[in-house]
Amino acid sequence: MSKTALAAEWEPKYAGRAERMRASEIRELLKVLDQPDVISFAGGIPDPALFPVRQAAEAYAAILGDAAAAGSGLQYSVSEGYLPLRQWIVRHMGSLGVVCDADNVVITSGSQQGLEFLGRLLLSPGDTALTMAPTYLGALQAFSAYEPRYDELRPEDGNRTPASYADAARAAGGAVKFAYVVPSFANPTGETLSRAAREHLLDLAGELDIPIIEDAAYAMLRFEGEPVLPIVALEVARRGSIEKARTIYCGTFSKVLSPGLRIGWIVAPKPLIRRLVLIKQASDLNNATLNQMAMHRMAEAAFDERVAASCAHYRRRRDAMLAALANHMPKGVSWTEPKGGLFTWLRLPEGLDGAALLTRSLAEARVAFVPGSAFFFDDRMRNTARLSYSLPSEDRIEEGIVRLARLI
Amino acid sequence: MSKTALAAEWEPKYAGRAERMRASEIRELLKVLDQPDVISFAGGIPDPALFPVRQAAEAYAAILGDAAAAGSGLQYSVSEGYLPLRQWIVRHMGSLGVVCDADNVVITSGSQQGLEFLGRLLLSPGDTALTMAPTYLGALQAFSAYEPRYDELRPEDGNRTPASYADAARAAGGAVKFAYVVPSFANPTGETLSRAAREHLLDLAGELDIPIIEDAAYAMLRFEGEPVLPIVALEVARRGSIEKARTIYCGTFSKVLSPGLRIGWIVAPKPLIRRLVLIKQASDLNNATLNQMAMHRMAEAAFDERVAASCAHYRRRRDAMLAALANHMPKGVSWTEPKGGLFTWLRLPEGLDGAALLTRSLAEARVAFVPGSAFFFDDRMRNTARLSYSLPSEDRIEEGIVRLARLI
Repeated sequence: MSKTALAAEWEPKYAGRAERMRASEIRELLKVLDQPDVISFAGGIPDPALFPVRQAAEAYAAILGDAAAAGSGLQYSVSEGYLPLRQWIVRHMGSLGVVCDADNVVITSGSQQGLEFLGRLLLSPGDTALTMAPTYLGALQAFSAYEPRYDELRPEDGNRTPASYADAARAAGGAVKFAYVVPSFANPTGETLSRAAREHLLDLAGELDIPIIEDAAYAMLRFEGEPVLPIVALEVARRGSIEKARTIYCGTFSKVLSPGLRIGWIVAPKPLIRRLVLIKQASDLNNATLNQMAMHRMAEAAFDERVAASCAHYRRRRDAMLAALANHMPKGVSWTEPKGGLFTWLRLPEGLDGAALLTRSLAEARVAFVPGSAFFFDDRMRNTARLSYSLPSEDRIEEGIVRLARLI
Repeated sequence: MSKTALAAEWEPKYAGRAERMRASEIRELLKVLDQPDVISFAGGIPDPALFPVRQAAEAYAAILGDAAAAGSGLQYSVSEGYLPLRQWIVRHMGSLGVVCDADNVVITSGSQQGLEFLGRLLLSPGDTALTMAPTYLGALQAFSAYEPRYDELRPEDGNRTPASYADAARAAGGAVKFAYVVPSFANPTGETLSRAAREHLLDLAGELDIPIIEDAAYAMLRFEGEPVLPIVALEVARRGSIEKARTIYCGTFSKVLSPGLRIGWIVAPKPLIRRLVLIKQASDLNNATLNQMAMHRMAEAAFDERVAASCAHYRRRRDAMLAALANHMPKGVSWTEPKGGLFTWLRLPEGLDGAALLTRSLAEARVAFVPGSAFFFDDRMRNTARLSYSLPSEDRIEEGIVRLARLI
């Protein structure tokens, strides 16, 4: 890992495409969100209309109105996280088919921090990370700091053989260190891996002797159809115990309760959690104590109800977007039909660049989205775009798609 | 950067002495803090009696009681941090002699996260970090993940020549990348660098072409004597502008208002801040939005008043500790006389190991402290201990020192 010497300008350790993308186009996108005439399908962020504001106000008032609780909430706390919150997570994981205890849980600053920690722990320069393509931009950002090579998973279509992945990694001077997937209502495609694909991934990971990092950010937002067990639950069922499993589960409260409190978690075997607690300690000592205490109260009061409300709310918006796409998009444009989550993935006619379309779209149609190229670790499929239906109302979704279709 | 392959056990990337120390002895220390018969001089944590609980309650109630503010507070936000809070920090830095603007500031999850980011940005394995010895354990933890070599600064006694530091770094296979200091009321010694020592450090850094990382965690807690300008202020005065300076200032609200909200900041030239914003984004997207909004209100309402109250409060406790040490410690024990902050540093008779003393002290005297060896990057001066006077009352301080002196 060589770094240019510090000179008059500060040299970045990493300046990969994903970072540049994020820093330029996406920051520009964030700016236009404040302009009321822009219809934004860009941000993959929850609708603030769904935030449990009353429960949050009650939680903070209760904690800060009690001298002992306030003293704890405003103080440092243990790096692994607030015990009652970890116990809530243990019960939640149990409801998903994963028996574990509080020592299998570490609290992170959103699941983003969990991904960054895992990159830091597991990747050396030249190692290989297996991901789907496209995949979550923030994961590529987090991992890329540790200078891996990426190779592509295609769990629905049949992955390559374990030997093929291992050989390619060795030829590149490293080893395969993990497989990263967003198995349910993925960012950016909205697609969900079938149970067979999940089992197939476990087979592959077993043969490669690597963990799977399961990013479950959107998993609770299922609008219809039968839930598929999390990969970690399938592995616990195979091996008999979380301690014998290798899947690392990253969860978050961001999509159901609030991203502004920055609370996610990792569930994994205890030896790994102990490592992650040390990394947490070195990184920022602990998650904000007050927020963990408040989130515990908010989760107790509102998690199930907010899951139901969010699913109903986003389902209406997905319906509006899929209907508008079907009614207005010209031939040669196709899209995914998500059964949950916040996104659909648009495939534009060959030769139409998503980034170029965005520039025109902002200027001429006042519609924002994220060009698909941001979500690839290599340069391909520039004729794609991620559309989020989480923020605009159903009317605005229809109007935005009409404008976008006219442009295409 | 080689890593052992993942096998049945999870391999740590780093398992340095500091981490093990933190994970074993210090975690044990934290546990005994809950036992009311233990007098703890261990934690370097603020006294919760000083937390601005009323102002915190008002801040959260005001934000969560306003629909628009609540919507913002519970949502994602920009990685550089909440603008009104950065503007407050700009005014605060101005009061310390540093003219800058909001684009010179990034909000971090405590100053600990700032240190970790700087290690990640600046250090490659085998590079050299210059620090004092002893120095802040958490900085060693944060930097050690990036596998540097350490070399010792002695700014009061005369550092070695720039060539000597550079040659030693080159011989070790890297380069000197930065100098890290806690110039005011240092953790763990309580000592403060004179203006001459700060200027000397700037000369050295200039000749080595490296930045100084100035950790100002305790700088506001001055009990007596004339303030010394921050190193960054001295460098801005030399060079005429923050943009021409190389010092990286790490500040925090943890010691004056609340560590439980996890809010610190870095002030530096804009090109470096832009890099750090990308690292922040890849690491955890943004600091908890709600806390930044609340901290802005708390700082506006209570910062100056809490500085004054904290100084008066900790000054009484320092006085009690220094008096008790003078009255009860046997010959052969010496200590620093801090003019601010939370710590004094004990030098025990040669051959008396601080860690061994802790074991006996917990068992026989029910007094906790941190053995000095935790604060060294190498193995020396085990006959030392850090005593914090921040938490016990004056009576308990006297009683604890009596018990400890009897043991020694």
